Amino acid sequence: MVVALRGRGLRQRIVAVCPHDECTEQVVRRALSEGIAHFVLVAEAAHTDVPKKIQADFPDAVEFMEAPTPDEAAALAVKVIKEGKGDVLMKGLINTDNLLRAVLKKEIGLLPPGGVLTHVSVAETPLYHKLLCFSDAAVIPRPELHHFRAMVKGNVALCHNLGIEEPRVALIHCTEKVNEKFPHTLDYVQLKKDVEDGMFGKAVIDGPMDAKTACDLHSGQVKGIASPVVGNADILIFPNIESGNVFYKTLSFFGKADMAGMLMGAEAPVVVPSRSDSETSKYNSLILACLSTKK
Amino acid sequence: MVVALRGRGLRQRIVAVCPHDECTEQVVRRALSEGIAHFVLVAEAAHTDVPKKIQADFPDAVEFMEAPTPDEAAALAVKVIKEGKGDVLMKGLINTDNLLRAVLKKEIGLLPPGGVLTHVSVAETPLYHKLLCFSDAAVIPRPELHHFRAMVKGNVALCHNLGIEEPRVALIHCTEKVNEKFPHTLDYVQLKKDVEDGMFGKAVIDGPMDAKTACDLHSGQVKGIASPVVGNADILIFPNIESGNVFYKTLSFFGKADMAGMLMGAEAPVVVPSRSDSETSKYNSLILACLSTKK
Repeated sequence: MVVALRGRGLRQRIVAVCPHDECTEQVVRRALSEGIAHFVLVAEAAHTDVPKKIQADFPDAVEFMEAPTPDEAAALAVKVIKEGKGDVLMKGLINTDNLLRAVLKKEIGLLPPGGVLTHVSVAETPLYHKLLCFSDAAVIPRPELHHFRAMVKGNVALCHNLGIEEPRVALIHCTEKVNEKFPHTLDYVQLKKDVEDGMFGKAVIDGPMDAKTACDLHSGQVKGIASPVVGNADILIFPNIESGNVFYKTLSFFGKADMAGMLMGAEAPVVVPSRSDSETSKYNSLILACLSTKK
Repeated sequence: MVVALRGRGLRQRIVAVCPHDECTEQVVRRALSEGIAHFVLVAEAAHTDVPKKIQADFPDAVEFMEAPTPDEAAALAVKVIKEGKGDVLMKGLINTDNLLRAVLKKEIGLLPPGGVLTHVSVAETPLYHKLLCFSDAAVIPRPELHHFRAMVKGNVALCHNLGIEEPRVALIHCTEKVNEKFPHTLDYVQLKKDVEDGMFGKAVIDGPMDAKTACDLHSGQVKGIASPVVGNADILIFPNIESGNVFYKTLSFFGKADMAGMLMGAEAPVVVPSRSDSETSKYNSLILACLSTKK
């Protein structure tokens, strides 16, 4: 995925909050060594050694800042982005909830009024012929129509940024029938209208269909479903967090996928690596976030 | 999986409803050629040619019956099992809902009072060191405690039948914390008590945990979760049908898994192949059902 995503010649400014743990340090140093980004390292006062050392090693590409507590470091990082001096927010050794509290704060935070924060994952797997983007494996427990719209919007925008002109969106469910027994499928009908109305730009959408049918042409043929999305999806939208999370974890372990993930919907993408992600996955997430900013 | 499941020396009596489509015929003929089962073929009057021909080819192992309509064929098949003359019910070219209506009919059907029908899948994948059983990918949309109990009971009984003395059960969710925001995790607390109380016989249970942690020791170590289930689950219980279905489809396509599946909870296992299953998968399901009967 690194190969697929790199080489745009961009050098975004990544604002890292509490970047003093070993794992964050590794990822930051790798990005600096490969020259793909600038960094603003916002340290908490008790842990400035590591970030200061990184700055000493890469003085031209790193700015150092300091705040008394992790929460204040998060607030400072948000301010840096708000002032246009940073493009991507990245979590170091700070609790995710505390970081997001700063992001979601009214007026001084990064979420536009009425905005929705959604998790977008991108997977590269040996058995599929292209990248696969999907939501939501991590932050929206019980999506309603406006959440689904945010998911489609974020994923379609990401695909456009990745050079996919007309991404194909599959709305995932265990049934192919729109059915009141499964209320999400009613939202799917509206989402299809939205896409036809051009709400998200150029895209094709279909569903409900199961996760295999979306990615396996043969499965669609057996079921007699003809659609430009079947067997060729760029984007999968899942009906709830449980199914999105199962997809992420199953693809990552049983499907040997390289994963990347970030939060979209705020003024800047937010990279929130999970402890169980591989180093590759954490690094891919950073690159993905850089590519998903507009500039 | 065929190798793993075969060779018990059993010859169960499989009652097939409307077995005149090409796919059912193939599976039935294969089972007969390999001598692993007897069959009662219950045909509908308009389609007796194929089943009659099968009987002519295997006269010692096949009984032929006939009913005017598919619904009456289903009712007749249920009666055969009810009278102790069949061990496994198998769907041919009849609508699943119609077959299940006969199974679920009060008093003359196959579901005991208060019983729950649950779908059990078994997967064999190149990346996992043993068979993986899970529920529910197909029939219980929004499980409550009594449904979860039926799932655990069915899967544990199946594992015992497969020779796994003390199966390890993972309760799957996107979080590791018991949390009122995710009400299923509260059911999980009770299920853990049930297993400790010996409600399902010998078994170990843990969760909530994600699908990767259940099957990947490294993922559990990174998260600091120590449990005999982590990285070594025999059974996965999913919180809803959407996540169970996503696991089935993702494992089958991206994980290159051989799948088998059946319905448990009735007086006999019910094999309900899906159109998109491979022939191997359909055949495995039949063998699995034969192995899951008590005798």
